[in-house]
Amino acid sequence: MITKIGLLGYGTVGAGVAQIVTQEQALLTQKLGWTIKLVKAVVRNPQAQRRFTPPEGLLTTEPDEVVGNPEIEVVCELIGGIEPARTLVLKALSAGQHVITANKALLALHGTEIFEKAQEVNRCVMFEAAVAGSIPIIRTIREGLSANRIQNLYGILNGTTNLILTRMSKDHLTFDSALKEAQQAGYAEADPTTDVMGYDAAHKLILLTALAYGVLPKMDDIHIEGITQLEPEDFSFASEFGYVIKLLAVSSLVEKETIEARLQPVMLPASHLLAGVGGAMNAVMVRGNASGDIFVSGPGAGMMPTASAVVGDILEVARTTRHSHSDHRPSALGWRSLKSEMIKPITQTSAPYYLRYAVIDRPGVLSSISGILGRHDISLAQVIQKGQNPQTGTVNLVMLTHRAVFGDLSEAVKETQALEVVKGVHLIRVEEFN
Amino acid sequence: MITKIGLLGYGTVGAGVAQIVTQEQALLTQKLGWTIKLVKAVVRNPQAQRRFTPPEGLLTTEPDEVVGNPEIEVVCELIGGIEPARTLVLKALSAGQHVITANKALLALHGTEIFEKAQEVNRCVMFEAAVAGSIPIIRTIREGLSANRIQNLYGILNGTTNLILTRMSKDHLTFDSALKEAQQAGYAEADPTTDVMGYDAAHKLILLTALAYGVLPKMDDIHIEGITQLEPEDFSFASEFGYVIKLLAVSSLVEKETIEARLQPVMLPASHLLAGVGGAMNAVMVRGNASGDIFVSGPGAGMMPTASAVVGDILEVARTTRHSHSDHRPSALGWRSLKSEMIKPITQTSAPYYLRYAVIDRPGVLSSISGILGRHDISLAQVIQKGQNPQTGTVNLVMLTHRAVFGDLSEAVKETQALEVVKGVHLIRVEEFN
Repeated sequence: MITKIGLLGYGTVGAGVAQIVTQEQALLTQKLGWTIKLVKAVVRNPQAQRRFTPPEGLLTTEPDEVVGNPEIEVVCELIGGIEPARTLVLKALSAGQHVITANKALLALHGTEIFEKAQEVNRCVMFEAAVAGSIPIIRTIREGLSANRIQNLYGILNGTTNLILTRMSKDHLTFDSALKEAQQAGYAEADPTTDVMGYDAAHKLILLTALAYGVLPKMDDIHIEGITQLEPEDFSFASEFGYVIKLLAVSSLVEKETIEARLQPVMLPASHLLAGVGGAMNAVMVRGNASGDIFVSGPGAGMMPTASAVVGDILEVARTTRHSHSDHRPSALGWRSLKSEMIKPITQTSAPYYLRYAVIDRPGVLSSISGILGRHDISLAQVIQKGQNPQTGTVNLVMLTHRAVFGDLSEAVKETQALEVVKGVHLIRVEEFN
Repeated sequence: MITKIGLLGYGTVGAGVAQIVTQEQALLTQKLGWTIKLVKAVVRNPQAQRRFTPPEGLLTTEPDEVVGNPEIEVVCELIGGIEPARTLVLKALSAGQHVITANKALLALHGTEIFEKAQEVNRCVMFEAAVAGSIPIIRTIREGLSANRIQNLYGILNGTTNLILTRMSKDHLTFDSALKEAQQAGYAEADPTTDVMGYDAAHKLILLTALAYGVLPKMDDIHIEGITQLEPEDFSFASEFGYVIKLLAVSSLVEKETIEARLQPVMLPASHLLAGVGGAMNAVMVRGNASGDIFVSGPGAGMMPTASAVVGDILEVARTTRHSHSDHRPSALGWRSLKSEMIKPITQTSAPYYLRYAVIDRPGVLSSISGILGRHDISLAQVIQKGQNPQTGTVNLVMLTHRAVFGDLSEAVKETQALEVVKGVHLIRVEEFN
């Protein structure tokens, strides 16, 4: 007995999948009870160099040899991007094939369409590899914590930015030089926009939110901030306050039927488990009402960790679908239908904030700024004034606020920006983990 | 449509399961697509006080109202101990019921019989709650990392001993006072043997080893050391060397088809993720050949965390078995058959060790001891001599060895113990995580 698999794409991850399925065939057969076989892989250029030499005859340029091929039960979509991935995935499902994908952008932006199609035709869509590499966070939320009302979810979901932030924090690099270094080491792309602007992590946050709450937010529902605005001084001040700066994906059940979802650099206590997640590692902390806090960390990307997740899904699809004449496939999100929870606008959320003003050092500055903040109900927990910047002649006036509603704070900050003495403001949320 | 559940036992965990199934019925139905219903719970004394008041008519003293009741599809065994649990579980399986259990002792000691019976009758045995509370470590290894050859597995699997060790380490308590404190706080039992001698953690190690390697070791195959021999000085010296002492469950693939499995207090680098796991928390680090290191931590016990794991299993059994006329149930261990890997005897394993000799402070002592060690090929990396014990008049002579074969080391230590000046020896393995 054999379960036959087709790949769309044979890049780094595809090569990793082929390597595991080929080299570990005996092990996989021992676990499953029968054999997994790669039948075809669709590529654009069969002559390109590959990280694992494909078996003779595997590569083809013809998508139809995989999608809709009645011999192939499971299609692994590893080409990335929206099109032609979207069309091919929908076509495979319609043809009765199960789909495994590592494509977070596709699922985050077209998840509703794809998950609905899968349910309609009663086929599986699995995507463990789309979030946090080899960490089995999809299974953890969908199955391990299925008995829970999830209350909070915190994730470090992008290895590239975590590497950059780790270097900025530990070795005092500027953003530009940390980015350049990450590019030279092959961690960051030539065009790093998707990573450093937070879009990649936001896609993953959408998927985790769907699993945790049964709600699939749109990109516009989520507050997304990248890391390009962070400066070395912010890391020094963070450390002075006992904090570390991380690009954190957060979704929380804030009221009944209301969720807060945001992706932003935040300050978190240096002693927190998430603060210790360094380099290109990923991590997620999930709080269930019964389970308590579950923390998971591991490699967030890379050829073999991502392939580990894809092949894990292949085994599960093979195991749960073979010989089963079920009209009740495991649902992709662990929910039978999506709820319509409200996403709370970021302006209505409240938290303590770090504010760093670059100001001209002149009498009365602190009083003008704090006066404006006070009128907007922003009260201060700590204030530090430090060191003149020789290039600009400005000094840093740093404040930690008490909990403030973000809408109020934004108004107040806008007003202070109009002051002639204010040359710049940096604002970072402080994560409370209450 | 309804999936009907019966409980064997309605103690702390049973009450937690009833609480979730009752209070979160809407949520569970939303996820599953149909309803989970508790039908009966077998107890010895229906009048006993309960942490969650059972619904009218739930309790019975008659096991047959659950086991073999054709109306009940899934039986949750939550009574613990070997008998009558073993007989009831086997009977339920034979009657065509799926079994969920939190009973690590039962599965560790009679797993072969139970898993074989389940396979024979094509029913599920699920046991997420048997290891590490609400941490979904069973799923992580069985499914999330199924594509991997597991290389190492390290676990802190007993919350009571981890709490005791944390207090001994951070607050310099003796074992006796830390134990008494844990008993008063309700963490340790009146008879703490199973915890402090390592038996409970060893049972869990057996189960994780079965999942990771497809081999179910016997208790006798495992090297088991408890924590009763540890003294406050060991924690001070550990800290001086940059180490922390943890009761660690380890199983490693050391050669092809050979496994090392042991449960013992070890010293590990204070900077290691596992060293930071404090109090009653549990944690596991698994290294797969493709996945890299996956680390998971969370609550290791308690009413709601354990119930979270049981109800997660209930949902999964309901989802994967309903409407499926499958002759291929998910196998309990993720392997279709158990392998016959050798367990390497602890005497043949090698590692660095910490040795603490209590000796009479007399010229030539160090040279006699190190002479004997040298003749047995034990070479020393560091030596510290410190502080006289006013009660015994002895001094501590502390050594860190280079890697030594445990059999050789034991021989050498035995020989040094015969020296008149040697009043005691303490020996702790140093974990390398290579």
